[in-house]
Amino acid sequence: MKESISWEPQRKKSIFSTRVFDIHEITSKAPNETEGTYYALHASDWVIVVPVLEGEGGARDFLMVRQWRHGAEAESVEFPGGVIDRGETPAEAAARELREETGHTAGKLERVAAISPNPAIMDNTCHIFIAENLVRTHDTDLDEDEFLTAQPMSAAAVFQGMGRPPFIHALMAAALFAYVQKKGLPV
Amino acid sequence: MKESISWEPQRKKSIFSTRVFDIHEITSKAPNETEGTYYALHASDWVIVVPVLEGEGGARDFLMVRQWRHGAEAESVEFPGGVIDRGETPAEAAARELREETGHTAGKLERVAAISPNPAIMDNTCHIFIAENLVRTHDTDLDEDEFLTAQPMSAAAVFQGMGRPPFIHALMAAALFAYVQKKGLPV
Repeated sequence: MKESISWEPQRKKSIFSTRVFDIHEITSKAPNETEGTYYALHASDWVIVVPVLEGEGGARDFLMVRQWRHGAEAESVEFPGGVIDRGETPAEAAARELREETGHTAGKLERVAAISPNPAIMDNTCHIFIAENLVRTHDTDLDEDEFLTAQPMSAAAVFQGMGRPPFIHALMAAALFAYVQKKGLPV
Repeated sequence: MKESISWEPQRKKSIFSTRVFDIHEITSKAPNETEGTYYALHASDWVIVVPVLEGEGGARDFLMVRQWRHGAEAESVEFPGGVIDRGETPAEAAARELREETGHTAGKLERVAAISPNPAIMDNTCHIFIAENLVRTHDTDLDEDEFLTAQPMSAAAVFQGMGRPPFIHALMAAALFAYVQKKGLPV
């Protein structure tokens, strides 16, 4: 390792807002003492839940949701998840998103990673949970502009398909990595 | 599966620009014919390269880079990668970033995934490569405001550490997932 690579942030200001994120302009001092200006999205923290359904004879499904994504302008098959509301803990948000999007409640809900969605241009954290011992307890409860369908899919199919349509969301690949790191290959 | 979940994008306009990304405002028609407005980052495509060093007796290292990330305001240990320049193919960008950040050239460079960094709020694609048969051919060649160090780390340590500091970048977990999907567990 050569000399220091750490910068010293000097100033930060919000220069643009949408209802989902703000844009922050960050002025930071480089290891060689020069200053630079960088841009980052300031957003709430997120949760992703990997819901595991144990079948007969060791067969295992993940409970997946299919929805439209406005950035990619495409359908995406994902693990349930969403934004942590003000005052919620990550675990409370994970349980709520699982309930709202799939109607299920988890007997066991374990946080397995807390990772930056993109530390280059975002300042928030994504908390990844594994949910087990699932019971259908509620009807789904979707936002007015949320159109999604939940369905079990074989864990092997999700593992093999991740990274190709409709499994296009990199944060879901990161969540599946966290599952594999904790539980081993699902196949 | 219930009724359609597909939206129909109607209009899109750029409402804010930085040198790294633009913000697009997207108006889209829901499956129930109502219209909504959404915000997405419009950015260039990216590449991530998983560089594999085969050691004696089957030991395997990944060639990692450590750098400061202005969004998270923290050091991050990552696979090499960056933005695809205008006119470059993803493979050309992967070879260039590997050369600039680590000084290495790959005898074998294979694309294993093309994934959306975040299809909810981004419109770009991240291409993931595995680089093998590495030879040190160049000095590193960093941008003026790029301060990073490259070093081999055991594949097992990267696998086990991913998702905890300094391995904080979710896209690197997604890239490591793509490696595991293709090559199996590195441990």
